Amino acid sequence: MKEKLRKEIEEIEALTDEEFTYITSHFKERRFKKNQFVVQEGMPVPYDFFVVKGLLKAYVIDDKGKEHILQFAMENWWISDYQAHFSEKPASINIDCIEDCEMLALSLENRRKICREFHKMDRFFSIKFNLGYIRLQQRILSLLRENAEERYRNLLEKQPDLIQRVPKKYLAGFLGLSRETLSRLDLSPK
Amino acid sequence: MKEKLRKEIEEIEALTDEEFTYITSHFKERRFKKNQFVVQEGMPVPYDFFVVKGLLKAYVIDDKGKEHILQFAMENWWISDYQAHFSEKPASINIDCIEDCEMLALSLENRRKICREFHKMDRFFSIKFNLGYIRLQQRILSLLRENAEERYRNLLEKQPDLIQRVPKKYLAGFLGLSRETLSRLDLSPK
Repeated sequence: MKEKLRKEIEEIEALTDEEFTYITSHFKERRFKKNQFVVQEGMPVPYDFFVVKGLLKAYVIDDKGKEHILQFAMENWWISDYQAHFSEKPASINIDCIEDCEMLALSLENRRKICREFHKMDRFFSIKFNLGYIRLQQRILSLLRENAEERYRNLLEKQPDLIQRVPKKYLAGFLGLSRETLSRLDLSPK
Repeated sequence: MKEKLRKEIEEIEALTDEEFTYITSHFKERRFKKNQFVVQEGMPVPYDFFVVKGLLKAYVIDDKGKEHILQFAMENWWISDYQAHFSEKPASINIDCIEDCEMLALSLENRRKICREFHKMDRFFSIKFNLGYIRLQQRILSLLRENAEERYRNLLEKQPDLIQRVPKKYLAGFLGLSRETLSRLDLSPK
């Protein structure tokens, strides 16, 4: 499992074998079954997760029982309720598994430890959040300026692998559409 | 101007006087007039800006000429087109001044330099992006699950100082509403 994490880190910062072994010893291997909760609203969020295998969704349920999807995560993505995790408060979102998942879990304490000990790990996480920030900005612009069909087409263009794996009902919740609207879209190739 | 930046950094990392003088020597003082562009679509984005005084908006204009506002920034906020800035590509958004602004500008080269030289500056920016990431997640959830009135009320509750300063026409573009919808909302106290 940990070789995937090495590849992920080394896209930004090179590691010696000793550093790799030491740093990854701070991550715990975790397996989850399809539909299992990884983070549950109201519960503590002790870990940030690196996805080695599988597919998850982070979401909230509104008063009417409708699911609004904040993000998906698959191989080589990171996922957690960051607000809750970093402030050590109860989760305000849910994260569960769309497929069986294998993940590497990093506690806040261990994160702080390896970031204190290795400037390069701080830099790694800094760049990851930086990229994540940019991605979320793009998503906000998409929600503000695009209509349903444009949003779907953009997602299809940017992440075809994700679209193929995510059941349609979840895509609607991610794009901010009803399932009826999504199925009415003209999605024939242009 | 630079004392404000010191306060901002020291909310996260303490600095000696020498560190402060050295680090802030990498920032340039910049003044902009109301309506002046700070970042313009299609142009290079050499700087990230820390707002000492004033109010700005980051936005895109769609094919129909409608303005969609990604974010506002006022005192003690950071603003740039981060995607363009970090990838050294032309801007894909516009940033202009709603009020006269005083800012501290940090080039990518100087950012890398002070982050390389001071682990604590890397940590500072890492935590800022981390907080920014969390804030954008909250905004996405708001766009997905809240109706117009709820969005407006939440903004009013979280950032009353911002609401008072931002002209109504820009608030509509931020909340993803038409100006007509915004003015129809029942905004009497509840």
